[in-house]
Amino acid sequence: MEFDLIQKYFVPLSHTSNMDLDDLFIGDDGALVTPVADAQLVIVTDTLVEGVHFPVGSASYDIGWKALAVNLSDLAAMGAKPAFYSLALTLPKVDQSWLNGLVQGLADCASPYSIPLIGGDTTRGPLTLTVTAQGWVPKGRALLRKGAKAGQGIFVTGFIGEAGRGLSLALAGQCADKAADLRSLSRLNRPVPRVELGCALVGVASSAIDVSDGLLADLNHILVASNVGANLRTADIPLSKSVQEWAGDQPLKPLCAGDDYELCFTASLDKAEQLYGLAEQQGVKLSQIGLISQQPGLLVDGVALDLKQTGYNHFSG
Amino acid sequence: MEFDLIQKYFVPLSHTSNMDLDDLFIGDDGALVTPVADAQLVIVTDTLVEGVHFPVGSASYDIGWKALAVNLSDLAAMGAKPAFYSLALTLPKVDQSWLNGLVQGLADCASPYSIPLIGGDTTRGPLTLTVTAQGWVPKGRALLRKGAKAGQGIFVTGFIGEAGRGLSLALAGQCADKAADLRSLSRLNRPVPRVELGCALVGVASSAIDVSDGLLADLNHILVASNVGANLRTADIPLSKSVQEWAGDQPLKPLCAGDDYELCFTASLDKAEQLYGLAEQQGVKLSQIGLISQQPGLLVDGVALDLKQTGYNHFSG
Repeated sequence: MEFDLIQKYFVPLSHTSNMDLDDLFIGDDGALVTPVADAQLVIVTDTLVEGVHFPVGSASYDIGWKALAVNLSDLAAMGAKPAFYSLALTLPKVDQSWLNGLVQGLADCASPYSIPLIGGDTTRGPLTLTVTAQGWVPKGRALLRKGAKAGQGIFVTGFIGEAGRGLSLALAGQCADKAADLRSLSRLNRPVPRVELGCALVGVASSAIDVSDGLLADLNHILVASNVGANLRTADIPLSKSVQEWAGDQPLKPLCAGDDYELCFTASLDKAEQLYGLAEQQGVKLSQIGLISQQPGLLVDGVALDLKQTGYNHFSG
Repeated sequence: MEFDLIQKYFVPLSHTSNMDLDDLFIGDDGALVTPVADAQLVIVTDTLVEGVHFPVGSASYDIGWKALAVNLSDLAAMGAKPAFYSLALTLPKVDQSWLNGLVQGLADCASPYSIPLIGGDTTRGPLTLTVTAQGWVPKGRALLRKGAKAGQGIFVTGFIGEAGRGLSLALAGQCADKAADLRSLSRLNRPVPRVELGCALVGVASSAIDVSDGLLADLNHILVASNVGANLRTADIPLSKSVQEWAGDQPLKPLCAGDDYELCFTASLDKAEQLYGLAEQQGVKLSQIGLISQQPGLLVDGVALDLKQTGYNHFSG
């Protein structure tokens, strides 16, 4: 592995920082970080493997973007403000233009938050990226999965199933010449983590998760952790017209598709007005899709759903 | 990937903790950690790839041990007390006895420090392990590479070149029936990070690094960062009899071999007595191997060394 080359590509990613230089030292055997006062640290890790999480031959820009975005989405789901990240990269070979794309994807995804790359490891091997991202949340106020209570509303950001439709297009090798197709592929390849809204939900939402494995599967994590149930109204679930067409006569299909990286959260209904205001400030669509119930289990339009029949499998290329 | 199986193997690793439950929450989309008062966080990451960092077919116990040990060694080199770690694992298939070995290796390496696994990601793919380990160091007192000053002593723990000799044995497929061979292979496969000594060096050593790429290459990182030079005396470098025999007429060979995971550090000579006392308390051999000089460059027994002619390459299987 040509370490000088890697150095050339990755060191610049460490120079953009939202932290005072006194609070961050990068180099040596590790990075040194001064904690933020009265805050707790949130640590998330996600790996992307070629042929599993993205098809062989994907654009390196998209790979870089997504490797960071999925981690920032996890931070958002806990209400944490992104602070820094590390990258462990294994690469079969050094290809300058490929690396340029990867670095640009990471840089563009990190840019709104000015978070630095604080370290990592680069090795020869099959193409795999592991990002560990860290953020700060006010002490004792992280959004968890276990806070949902009966009578509270269930909310979701953005549109659901868009990335799932994008994956279908990508797997079919369909040329994306329509605006709707480009939007679906963009949601698949360059998901936008709901970072600002996640941070704004601290003290407002009672539980939260990001939609990575499918809306129903992820909502179910909240239900199990909170020991409650839910009533969903499919008519209220935000689906674009093209996703509705894609779903056809399988209305649950978009709700079982992964990779949306929207936020699903619960909150008291008396917070609804405040929530719609926060979402509007961020330019994020927000929809109430149902209510939390005392009785465990998931009802969709009044019909009990067996979640084992749904689910989501990563692309296996 | 059979996630229930993975859950079964890895969740127990999160239950051993040196932290109060109030200070650590594991689960949800990430882990939540309360910072230690007046401390800074040190973050290190290292990846092991099958066929690059360990031969195909290595014992899974050794792979688990080493993946964590090399990270704890990086923490030790900065004087940080290990606190927790995460693991990103890609696995070609689920093999229960292989996983049992891996988990036992991780558990045994973590055990002296009671550090929990706080999260991670498990994916189908080529065998790769990325550990991100984190530790706490008293604020402003981390050991860095840049503090070495002319006139200070250069010290190293343990014996040098032992893992390099072990790698030669492993690559030659030689049966290890002699005690010396077992020791060399053990240093290669189950390095013991110098964690307690690293922490004890805070406030005593002026710079430190761990010997991962070879003593000369790693010492050179200190020299460059500190803008100083060094005079080494080969007669003072701790080599076992079997490593001396292995080196034969190439006396620099053990000094260029990697994977020892000993500590190399500098300190004022008036701290020498204190240092030998600390090392003795830990049962760790300590040797002064030379002196820091004003003039940049590395002299070995008075002869200037061109480091570009030395170096270390990972095993390529």
